[in-house]
Amino acid sequence: MKVMNYKDAELKAEKAAKGAGIRWLLSERDGETGMAMRVIEIEAGGQTPDHAHSWEHQVFMLKGEGRVIVEGETRAIAPGSAIFVAPGENHTFHNDSGETMEFVCMIPVSATKAYEH
Amino acid sequence: MKVMNYKDAELKAEKAAKGAGIRWLLSERDGETGMAMRVIEIEAGGQTPDHAHSWEHQVFMLKGEGRVIVEGETRAIAPGSAIFVAPGENHTFHNDSGETMEFVCMIPVSATKAYEH
Repeated sequence: MKVMNYKDAELKAEKAAKGAGIRWLLSERDGETGMAMRVIEIEAGGQTPDHAHSWEHQVFMLKGEGRVIVEGETRAIAPGSAIFVAPGENHTFHNDSGETMEFVCMIPVSATKAYEH
Repeated sequence: MKVMNYKDAELKAEKAAKGAGIRWLLSERDGETGMAMRVIEIEAGGQTPDHAHSWEHQVFMLKGEGRVIVEGETRAIAPGSAIFVAPGENHTFHNDSGETMEFVCMIPVSATKAYEH
């Protein structure tokens, strides 16, 4: 078992993102697992880069309001939104609200080596 | 891509749980994925059964306060708690607050066949 508060994980700046950071919560460091849990934080007016990779995202929105754009299609997102970005899909998250946007972002554990964590 | 609000997923009663329900948000039905996202809701004073299975959980607490008991060890949980339950560990979630407890509960997609969804 591991229990932690997400605010106790260091907020690391996300390179290539405008005003975004990442907190690593759960990963292969915590035991036998097939996935990793992070919280992404995007400052008011900030965004993540439009990019694609071979692994999926499963996202749950906690705070803030804005848009996700996947393969050119725009959808509104707000607290309570669940978002699936399939492997290979281009995606970018925009915070259009006046507060920090926060969301849980799950990836397969096989993809964690692509990130500093 | 899929975007939905978690409240738009049907709340199904959890058998063998006292006052608990589950909303299925993302799974193999939504495309190529290695995991599934659900939200578990536990009424005030309710709990999930103490049980174990061969798959892990990665949990993020949204609402309510209480305890998780894993292999006999009790830890307090509240909004913002990230919880890892390793494969095979006995676990039960208790809602000790006066409001409904809600948490995101991730499982590997290989385990979804163990659940009605």
